[in-house]
Order: sequence, then C-alpha cells, then structure tokens
Amino acid sequence: MTSHKTGEFERIERLFAPLAAGFPGALGLTDDAALIRPTDGHELVVTTDTVVAGVHYIGDESPDLVARKLLRMNLSDLASMGARPVAYTLNVALPSDLEDDWLEAFTQGLAMDQAEFGISLAGGDSVSTPGPVTLTVTAFGEVPAGRALRRSGARPGDVVFVSGTIGDGALGLKVQRGLLPALPQAQQDVLTARYRLPRPRLGCGVGLRGIAHAAIDVSDGMVADLGHIADTSGVAARIDAASVPLSEAASAALALDPALRDAVLGGGDDYELLFTVPPASVGRVAALSQALALPLTAIGAIEPGQGVRVLGADGAEIALATRGFTHR
Amino acid sequence: MTSHKTGEFERIERLFAPLAAGFPGALGLTDDAALIRPTDGHELVVTTDTVVAGVHYIGDESPDLVARKLLRMNLSDLASMGARPVAYTLNVALPSDLEDDWLEAFTQGLAMDQAEFGISLAGGDSVSTPGPVTLTVTAFGEVPAGRALRRSGARPGDVVFVSGTIGDGALGLKVQRGLLPALPQAQQDVLTARYRLPRPRLGCGVGLRGIAHAAIDVSDGMVADLGHIADTSGVAARIDAASVPLSEAASAALALDPALRDAVLGGGDDYELLFTVPPASVGRVAALSQALALPLTAIGAIEPGQGVRVLGADGAEIALATRGFTHR
Repeated sequence: MTSHKTGEFERIERLFAPLAAGFPGALGLTDDAALIRPTDGHELVVTTDTVVAGVHYIGDESPDLVARKLLRMNLSDLASMGARPVAYTLNVALPSDLEDDWLEAFTQGLAMDQAEFGISLAGGDSVSTPGPVTLTVTAFGEVPAGRALRRSGARPGDVVFVSGTIGDGALGLKVQRGLLPALPQAQQDVLTARYRLPRPRLGCGVGLRGIAHAAIDVSDGMVADLGHIADTSGVAARIDAASVPLSEAASAALALDPALRDAVLGGGDDYELLFTVPPASVGRVAALSQALALPLTAIGAIEPGQGVRVLGADGAEIALATRGFTHR
Repeated sequence: MTSHKTGEFERIERLFAPLAAGFPGALGLTDDAALIRPTDGHELVVTTDTVVAGVHYIGDESPDLVARKLLRMNLSDLASMGARPVAYTLNVALPSDLEDDWLEAFTQGLAMDQAEFGISLAGGDSVSTPGPVTLTVTAFGEVPAGRALRRSGARPGDVVFVSGTIGDGALGLKVQRGLLPALPQAQQDVLTARYRLPRPRLGCGVGLRGIAHAAIDVSDGMVADLGHIADTSGVAARIDAASVPLSEAASAALALDPALRDAVLGGGDDYELLFTVPPASVGRVAALSQALALPLTAIGAIEPGQGVRVLGADGAEIALATRGFTHR
C-alpha cells in the first residue's frame, strides 16, 4: 500500500491495515507489493472495476454500500469465471475535503463483505484528487488450471440458463430515481436493495465448472451479456421472454406498467450468472440449483448464426428499446 | 476488460486489445477476468499505483510519457521485491471531452514499454469521469516462492546501498517548474528526463535475491524510504551524506545552490533501489554492480535503535528541511 500525502500513512495504518490483517501476503501493507500464491495446480483469476462518484453511484447511497457494491461487482466477475475469491487490492482517489466519517463507513462496508466472502485486502494506493471520489477494486480469485469458465464456449444446441431473477437491478435503479411511485413501498425496497447490494453467485460459478460451456455475469443487461457470449463463441442465441424468471416485485412492477419489459430484459446490474449448458448436462444444473437453493432457469437456446433474438409467448420476435450497455 | 459506455467496446477493441495480444491469459480482453498462472514454485507479486492529472503529473508531459512513468513506477515496486514483471491491468477514468489523440499517444507509450520490459496488458476497465484523467496500473510479477525481497529484514551491521544516482528525480521536478534556470540546458534536460521517465531497476532487484536483507525503491525520498526500512525492521539507519552518489547534473545544480542538498537527500521520484546487505555479502554487491554496469554505492549502515540520521563529512548530524512524503 503506497500513499503520497502527509498524514496518509497514519490513515492507512488506522483504517486499511486491519482489513489486511487476515492475509499474510499483504505484508501488513508495509511493503512495496503484496504476495499472492495460488494453491498448487491453480491459476489466478484477476478482474478490476472502477467507479466514479456521480457517474456509477449517485446521491443517497451510504459509503458502506458503495464499498460493498464495488467489491461485489468484482466478485461477480470471479463467479462468472468459476473462481473462488482470495483477495483484492483497493485504489482510492479522494477529494481533500472528504470527511473521515465517509472513509470510515466505507472501510466498515469492506470489512463486512470481507467477512461474508472470506477475502482480505492485499494492497492498494491512496491519492488525492480535485475531482470526484474514484474507486478501483482489483479482485483475485483462483481456479484449477484450465478449468475457468469462459464466454467463448457456447455451442449450438446448448440450453441458456440464468440464475436468480432478472430485471431487479434495472428496476431498483428506477425506484431509486423515483420513477416507480405506484409500486408498494415494500416492493420498492426489495428492488432498491437488489440494485444497491447485488449477490455475487460464487457457489454457482464454482458449481458450473465442467458443466457450463460458457458463462458471463449480467452486468450490462441480460440481452447484451448473452450477446457477448454469442459474439465471443461465434453463435446466435434465442431468449424466450416468457421463461425469464422474475421476482415478485418485478412482476408487480410489470403488471403496473408493461412497458418496463425492456428495462427488465435489457437493463443491467443484476449480477446473476448467465450460462449455456449442453442438453446432456441439464440434469446437473437442476441438481446444482437444489444444492444451492438458487433458481437456475432455462430461458433459451444457442443456435447457429449470430446475434440475440428475444421471442414473445407467440413466437414472434420482440424488438427491445434498449439492449444494454448504456445504463451508466 | 469491462466498459460501460456506448462506443467503449469499439475503443477497447481498437486501442487496448493489441496491447493484450501477447498475453494468452488476457483472453483477448473479451472475458470477465484475466488468467495469470505463475511459473511452478513461484508466487505472484502485486503492486498498484494511481495517478491523477493535475496532481501527479502537470502540464506539458506528453501522454506517452504519462503512460510509461505510471508503468515504471509499478515496475520499480516489483524490482524492489526482486520480482520479474509479467503483466499489468489498467483502469482509466476519462473525461468525455478527452481527445482520441490523447488516448492513442497514451497507448503508444504503453506499447513501447511493454516491448522494453516484456510485459503485456492483461485486463482493465474504462469509465468516464467529470473529473480529471485518473489512471490506475496494477502490475504483476513473479518471484520464487519465499524469496521476495522485503522491507523488514534489515539488521544492525548491514551496509546500506543505493543503485544509480540520487536526487535527479526531485531536481528534475524543479527544472520542470522552472526553478533551476541557471543550470545549463543540457543538464536541465538530463534531470527532466530522469523525473519523467524513471528506470525501474529490475535486473538489480532480481540479482539481490538472497543477498539483500531488505530493499525498497526510492519513491518518497531516500531518507524517508530508508526510514520505512528502519521502521519495518525495528532498527536505526545512518546515511553518510558525502557518500550519496550524484549525477553530474545533480552535482552541477548543487554547486550552483548548496541549499538544494535537502531536495537531493529528501526528495522522491528517483526509483533507484535502496537496500541493506550483511558485510559478508558486500563483495557480491560489487560483482552484481559490474554485471549490470550499474553503480551500487554504499551510503551508510544499519544500527540498533530507531530512526534515520544523516551525517555530514564532519560526522555531525544534518537536519533536513524535508524528509520526503510531501512532494506530491
């Protein structure tokens, strides 16, 4: 952990060092670098995300939720590769007028999720900025060598599955913006929570090793992310809209305003896993779903060709107003 | 490599994907994460630095130099741990009005140093910001397990060495700010170049495995950085100011203005290696110096106690106006 401002050493010692106490390779954040040794026969999986105040989070989120969402976005990427999380590094660029309270709450959020996911801070950097708070997490996981899930293995005939429910993230953002006032408060709260605090599907990712041909996490939006699988694999994909699993809250929102369908199918921030499985392995997906107590729902198929089609209950293609990418 | 802005996918493909072409684990930047597998028996060394436009670099640097200095700051941290560099990830937060030319020159700088140091881009993130350009590099190296150099191994009796010359970084910053107008232009240029484009001492770091008890790179300033070794090792350190190796340009600057001595001893950004060696290994340091054609100069000693003393030629302690930390 390096830092270049008077007083930062003390701040690191007080706020960040305790987050690194559980990871010997962090060297107490007192060295120039951290040491990470994957388990024998494993390789390291590395992913990184940057968020900027006012761009990726806005308004009334508490700092602990900002911390936890940033960590979880990265853990979700590890999940989509079938990796077990190990550690992370943190880079913070902070305005000089940022209050200590903010940073304390932020580190409390990190501590909470470190405990939940069994990871530790391994290193990082702390600098000042005249701009907005800018935060980077780089997360490290490990996977048996050669067994990482990839986007590129989907084959025609594969069944497309998704974990959990879809659309809650995008609807949660709408709730946060005050755009779904007619929805009962309890359901608004459910959707907001899903947007603010996604659940990385780590057990699912690990369980899909050797089962899934391809996997990705739903961050840009289900249709867009399936498009990434299709493009990278050189295939086409079909989604049967009626099969897409919805939460009770999302169903209620759709019942009030059917036009929300596009946000559900195309919106992002669900952080569910989207994966393809050969027909012979569908039974293993059902067993995994049971073992995890997590719905894993077939929503479509991989086909020859290119692109993603979304079909309605009548078999006609649905043209979506948004296909993702642009939600932030 | 992830990205969340329309058009960013195309930009990544065009500008960043070529930087990842040489590293299979980057998966062409088309997956959720990168795969890094250390050589058998090795562990990964991870370091990360963030720089902010207007804070860590100012004014007329060309984007390729910004890129190369950021990479080299990280490579210098790997050098100080005795690691061989392997790959890096890059996070960019860019203002929406940033011109494509800037990013192109920036990536050209990265490409140049990738070739020089034998590393590749492994992944990253690209986001927009309403603030200044904010850049994070996380660099990955490897070292035989258990053989990384550390700050914490210095013992009383060790000889303190430094590579290359000291003070050029701090003086180069002064030149860039127009503060050394009396210095001949050629020497101004030498100092500016040292400030803008440090040389990570990777060969030296690798060569010091098994020789040095403790090592650090000079980024905060020689006295401050030796203080880090002393604090972490639980010892004191002494620097003999007259022994500190100076470049011709730094000597000329000091001759013009002896008050620059504090900037030389206490200023940062030299990115030389500062290390301690037991007396029995001093001969091996001389051999390494010859093999690398790099000056490795004894400048002091480790002693019982705590803190760092700087002694003048008369043996009296010198009180420095700056001891580092505060130069940026």
